[in-house]
Amino acid sequence: MQPDLLSSSQIAHTSHLFRRFLPLVHCMTNDVVQTFTANVLLALGASPAMVIDKAEAPQFAAIADALLINVGTHTQERAVAMRAAVESANAENKPWVLDPVGVGAIALRTEFCQQLLPLRPAVIRGNASEIMALAGMSHGGRGVDTTDTASAALPAAQALARQISTLVVVTGEVDYVTDGRRTVMVTGGDIIMTKVVGTGCALSAAVAASCALPGDRLDNVAAVCGMMKQAGKVAAENSKGPGSFAAAFLDALWAEGNV
Amino acid sequence: MQPDLLSSSQIAHTSHLFRRFLPLVHCMTNDVVQTFTANVLLALGASPAMVIDKAEAPQFAAIADALLINVGTHTQERAVAMRAAVESANAENKPWVLDPVGVGAIALRTEFCQQLLPLRPAVIRGNASEIMALAGMSHGGRGVDTTDTASAALPAAQALARQISTLVVVTGEVDYVTDGRRTVMVTGGDIIMTKVVGTGCALSAAVAASCALPGDRLDNVAAVCGMMKQAGKVAAENSKGPGSFAAAFLDALWAEGNV
Amino acid sequence: MQPDLLSSSQIAHTSHLFRRFLPLVHCMTNDVVQTFTANVLLALGASPAMVIDKAEAPQFAAIADALLINVGTHTQERAVAMRAAVESANAENKPWVLDPVGVGAIALRTEFCQQLLPLRPAVIRGNASEIMALAGMSHGGRGVDTTDTASAALPAAQALARQISTLVVVTGEVDYVTDGRRTVMVTGGDIIMTKVVGTGCALSAAVAASCALPGDRLDNVAAVCGMMKQAGKVAAENSKGPGSFAAAFLDALWAEGNV
Repeated sequence: MQPDLLSSSQIAHTSHLFRRFLPLVHCMTNDVVQTFTANVLLALGASPAMVIDKAEAPQFAAIADALLINVGTHTQERAVAMRAAVESANAENKPWVLDPVGVGAIALRTEFCQQLLPLRPAVIRGNASEIMALAGMSHGGRGVDTTDTASAALPAAQALARQISTLVVVTGEVDYVTDGRRTVMVTGGDIIMTKVVGTGCALSAAVAASCALPGDRLDNVAAVCGMMKQAGKVAAENSKGPGSFAAAFLDALWAEGNV
Repeated sequence: MQPDLLSSSQIAHTSHLFRRFLPLVHCMTNDVVQTFTANVLLALGASPAMVIDKAEAPQFAAIADALLINVGTHTQERAVAMRAAVESANAENKPWVLDPVGVGAIALRTEFCQQLLPLRPAVIRGNASEIMALAGMSHGGRGVDTTDTASAALPAAQALARQISTLVVVTGEVDYVTDGRRTVMVTGGDIIMTKVVGTGCALSAAVAASCALPGDRLDNVAAVCGMMKQAGKVAAENSKGPGSFAAAFLDALWAEGNV
Repeated sequence: MQPDLLSSSQIAHTSHLFRRFLPLVHCMTNDVVQTFTANVLLALGASPAMVIDKAEAPQFAAIADALLINVGTHTQERAVAMRAAVESANAENKPWVLDPVGVGAIALRTEFCQQLLPLRPAVIRGNASEIMALAGMSHGGRGVDTTDTASAALPAAQALARQISTLVVVTGEVDYVTDGRRTVMVTGGDIIMTKVVGTGCALSAAVAASCALPGDRLDNVAAVCGMMKQAGKVAAENSKGPGSFAAAFLDALWAEGNV
């Protein structure tokens, strides 16, 4: 079945919802992308909070509007706090998003993420190698970079989505958002986004925020992917390299919601 | 009693002291703001060092000129190291500053910060919700954002300052610095500062640095609040959004000390 | 013996090798410089991965092309994971680089780094105070800043290099790269680099990447020092302070490899 194309009116609608509902996102994410993730959420009109202690995290997950679990700098101690937070979010019917960074390439976090799947993430967001590994269809990338294209991973994404009744977002030159039946395709962006650390991880946080918005979840998630790609395209045109790109990207995201 | 207004000559004087004394600030702060905090201190002419191990931290707190305790990503392990560092700073008569991020909203860190109060911080710097919660006058904000204005929290700040004989800085659209008797009001800044993660946390580090300077502590602390607000205003005029603002803010802070 | 001067043709050659071999660098580094380190590696054409768990780190060190150990935010838990990663890198004949941040000034990490020396780092990169302390010739700096010039530390660097058969890079206004017999001197850069946190730590990561390239290691390491100094000079000319410098620096590094 042919994927749908994301519409610009859906992007505008979801962008408006961000400013109206200001979702509070509890981020349990990796050490490398903390600042950029927080600044992306703020630029979108959401509110970040990074609460990580194994006693604090479950308490906060019950208060926040959505939870992000990103295993980029996995440790065994963090796994305990993350699992407790996920269980608390589930108990309060709050959506949580899984970003399986490096899954497939590294054994321990692969096992941890597979154990989280029965706890039903609202969305799983990863690159092609990560999604294929999580679906049991490959042995993952090399480090945190993908060695496959997003379209090659689409069947795995669709199978995984159906298997645990979730949304799966597989990102790359083109992003796909699927529930296993309907798939939305998101184009745009710029290759320089792969030369700035955290663009993918911050997208996962933005996806978590979008899960707290009213309306169709698949449409909102696709829209937030579109907002990021659109900001990436604008920023690439307004910068001279990856350093100035990162600043221009936040400016462009901010401008999207302030027109 | 009417608050005093911060004078521009005080700002110039304190800015000069930073360049002359180059205070070394031991920062035990949260995971999200490490880089920005270090860069703010460097731009001001201070020197940052982030030493966190429970055995290293007390040793380093005795060497540094001032210590910052910021509980934004509190963990039970970090609490042990922080308390040991505070006790070491006190033993050497070095000032320490408390930034009670999220206090009121989250139980565990609220308790931890309350236990630190008898160890006499030189300054407590927080937003309105945090200061009110620490003074026992409210139940805190939602996440790390305040739900109150700084002026609403001024009576709580003054009471808290008197109660433990410290300075309290409550920041917002207007900042107030008080010892419970005298209060200095600091205006300026720009609303976009709330859309860049770490501006408040970095201010707390700068406040710690200012405690190591000679002269009246309340005046130096107010001056550093003024330096940050002044840089925020200049940066807002020289940027297009939160991404370019962050860079322009560091440039403006740097320029303040290099005129 | 007079040090050699780094040639611009060596810089061009090593820069080309980065783009051709895309080394994957396993970074176990401090909390303050994670993002900047990753972005510097990406701008050079290398690929960063920060894997820190004591069970994951040795597995990943065997996969990656090079390993960085930076003790800037040393903890006793991290020391265990770092040592396991180093042993794994050695078992697979992968080069590892030591950045002894704060060694000399703080006892615990000094001891840890001295214990790592028999595990034969491919390169040690530090400032003058750190290298002198590691060579047993001084009591270190104040915090993480050096109190000596690089040229004053050159004899210590040469002695240390001979003693454990490694390369030593001592950086400052001028950088020296030595194996204890041959020494290459690298000039350039700009004083503002000392006002942006992480320029030294990111250089150590870039040095680790260069150890994975074919050709003479001393020449490649000196070349990567030259690439950083060259980017620093260009960035200083294209920026107004430390905030805009950091972005311009990444842009300049990126441009070096894309001419």
